[in-house]
Amino acid sequence: MSNFKFSTLAMKMKSSIIRELLKSTNLPNVISFGGGVPDPGTFPREILAKIASEVISDEYQVSLQYGQTEGDPLLREAYLDMMKNGEGISGLTLDNIMITVGSQSALDLVSKVLLDSDSIYFISKPAYLGAASAFSVRSDHHEYMELTETGIDTDALEKRLVELKDEGVIHKVKFVYVVPNFHNPAGVTLSLEKREKLLELAEEYDFGIIEDDPYGDLRFEGEPIEPIFKLGDKERVLLLRTFSKILSPGMRLGFVIGNERLLQKLTLAKQSADLCSPTLTQRIAARFIMKHDFSDHLKPTIALYKEKKDLMLSELKKRFADLPGVSWTKPTGGLFVWLTLPEGFDTLEMMDLAKEKGVLFIPGESFSIDGCCNSSMRLSFCLPPHDKIIEGVRRLRETVQEYGKRRGLL
Amino acid sequence: MSNFKFSTLAMKMKSSIIRELLKSTNLPNVISFGGGVPDPGTFPREILAKIASEVISDEYQVSLQYGQTEGDPLLREAYLDMMKNGEGISGLTLDNIMITVGSQSALDLVSKVLLDSDSIYFISKPAYLGAASAFSVRSDHHEYMELTETGIDTDALEKRLVELKDEGVIHKVKFVYVVPNFHNPAGVTLSLEKREKLLELAEEYDFGIIEDDPYGDLRFEGEPIEPIFKLGDKERVLLLRTFSKILSPGMRLGFVIGNERLLQKLTLAKQSADLCSPTLTQRIAARFIMKHDFSDHLKPTIALYKEKKDLMLSELKKRFADLPGVSWTKPTGGLFVWLTLPEGFDTLEMMDLAKEKGVLFIPGESFSIDGCCNSSMRLSFCLPPHDKIIEGVRRLRETVQEYGKRRGLL
Repeated sequence: MSNFKFSTLAMKMKSSIIRELLKSTNLPNVISFGGGVPDPGTFPREILAKIASEVISDEYQVSLQYGQTEGDPLLREAYLDMMKNGEGISGLTLDNIMITVGSQSALDLVSKVLLDSDSIYFISKPAYLGAASAFSVRSDHHEYMELTETGIDTDALEKRLVELKDEGVIHKVKFVYVVPNFHNPAGVTLSLEKREKLLELAEEYDFGIIEDDPYGDLRFEGEPIEPIFKLGDKERVLLLRTFSKILSPGMRLGFVIGNERLLQKLTLAKQSADLCSPTLTQRIAARFIMKHDFSDHLKPTIALYKEKKDLMLSELKKRFADLPGVSWTKPTGGLFVWLTLPEGFDTLEMMDLAKEKGVLFIPGESFSIDGCCNSSMRLSFCLPPHDKIIEGVRRLRETVQEYGKRRGLL
Repeated sequence: MSNFKFSTLAMKMKSSIIRELLKSTNLPNVISFGGGVPDPGTFPREILAKIASEVISDEYQVSLQYGQTEGDPLLREAYLDMMKNGEGISGLTLDNIMITVGSQSALDLVSKVLLDSDSIYFISKPAYLGAASAFSVRSDHHEYMELTETGIDTDALEKRLVELKDEGVIHKVKFVYVVPNFHNPAGVTLSLEKREKLLELAEEYDFGIIEDDPYGDLRFEGEPIEPIFKLGDKERVLLLRTFSKILSPGMRLGFVIGNERLLQKLTLAKQSADLCSPTLTQRIAARFIMKHDFSDHLKPTIALYKEKKDLMLSELKKRFADLPGVSWTKPTGGLFVWLTLPEGFDTLEMMDLAKEKGVLFIPGESFSIDGCCNSSMRLSFCLPPHDKIIEGVRRLRETVQEYGKRRGLL
């Protein structure tokens, strides 16, 4: 028994379903479509091993020492260069970028710097729960945005903003949080038209936009859509990027790009949160992107994930086409397929049976602060090898079949 | 101009004096006694370079991948072994230890999990400002404990606890925060007697003890005093340790040891704060302590810091013995000397002159939430090489001399 007296916040904290599920990931014979966990085969391990050894031997005065709270200046500069050359985003200085312990830490800092207990923020439904969880530490006043094939419903958003204005609380709206590319979990991408509309709304109703973009670089097909950050400006938009899905999640490197004054505040919050990010992983990443063409490095990763995505889609078609009322997204990038079963199916309840059958997914309910998407599930195709994708989808069909029969749904 | 609307918390955030000062650390010709920054010569760089290369090449599926929020099981186990063999602290399992991004992150998590806005916590005066800053994010209700040569004044603490009980708010006291060994900034060590007294008070008045111990392993002389954690139990005491001063701060490895239920809550808070600590630096550290005797590794570090400490003390004696009213601590471990000038000296105001003279220290005022220690300063002896310590103390004397004359104090 602990004699420590917990805070009200701590009493509210509950272990997430995803967290509990991922514990089963390492069970033998279980095929996991669960976590958004990269294929370790995509990590450039031999290059990183060599660089790590070099930066420790030769640059130990930096790579093993305390560093700036804002992050390694070398990495920040190299990253800005990459943005300039790769995406044409220019006009940024070291004051516009900081490095965090993955994007999750950035979300936590954003929450501290922008949210009061009565602040309102907008988040999609379903949503990336890590964001919802970081924000809800500081405020309970979330507003949902429904998702369509082209991302959040901006018309509905506008309607709700008008209502909030009429209610006299529009000034409490701090930001709209969006995952514009290959949304987690829904897989959809925000259209150019809606990005522009969102910027207009931000101007009109005076709120910020948090553009969380972990998957944008993992595009398999089609042309990239300009980041909201580029369409708008850094005074309105804070851009979050990460190396977790495209280099190595274990290095925990998130990038926060935005307005100087906001960055200063985030830096102060970071100072109190962890003093500074690990200098070692930052310097390794800096040397990696300075010496290697990042888009070359990404090509085999994109090819592999496209192959796995195609395989999962074709297996889903093979196994589920005959089941009326089952649908799934056809992502053109990212890591996830969002599969929806007919009404009456409860994917959370289905989990026990799925575990018995040896397949894991994340039930739709996990992607909401207060309930949604009971009949949906998120399937991640990036980690399992090809034969496991085939076998996993087979097991999933078996699970759905058996659960559906038991519940009289099929 | 940022269009983002900051939180009340963000509006209160101010850049710390330490932070601003440390920016001057890298100026040429400036000798810094400022940050508690280890001598990079103590980093076992060749061993770490080899291990880093190996764990990336051979263990990339762990070292570059997402890891458990609680931390690398291998490192947690190896650390518990070290505690058992080195300190005789046993009976702990993996559920009693988690790994954070340095101790600062642990302090932030402790703050989230234990403090409500009306919670009371006790902290020394002067205090490690990183702790004060993490706690004050959640509560403004700090109570100060004066420091003596043997650590916090437990009699005064008891008196204040009685008052709080009489006022009917004793249940709001969540914890007493102590740095028991070689206190930052004061350099003092909490006596065995007072450790036991503190535990008695914790039982009687039902609060927790946060034992933050970054310096305990850096003992130059005398016998170690048992950790409060060992004298008491994990239900009352949460122990924070770190590799920042004894292996490498850039690896950002903090260890939190305590009760299972408290650790569970801290883990949930960490999940929302950064998902997991970097797996790479954790695995490197795990392999390091599994293959190398840590106390052997520490011997040259301790010898070096003792030498520097002795040098600083002898130089202080040489330069300041003739100045009446000047005193300084004689640390038997850690990184800091706490020097106090006669009344009337304002070490913060003295900073500009010190910079001109080319020497840096941290003014006493920096170690308090709302003012204290104006005539004191913290001097760190660990980073500058021997000749710079000699020259730095000479410049310090010059600064004090000149400032004192200008102000009519000498």
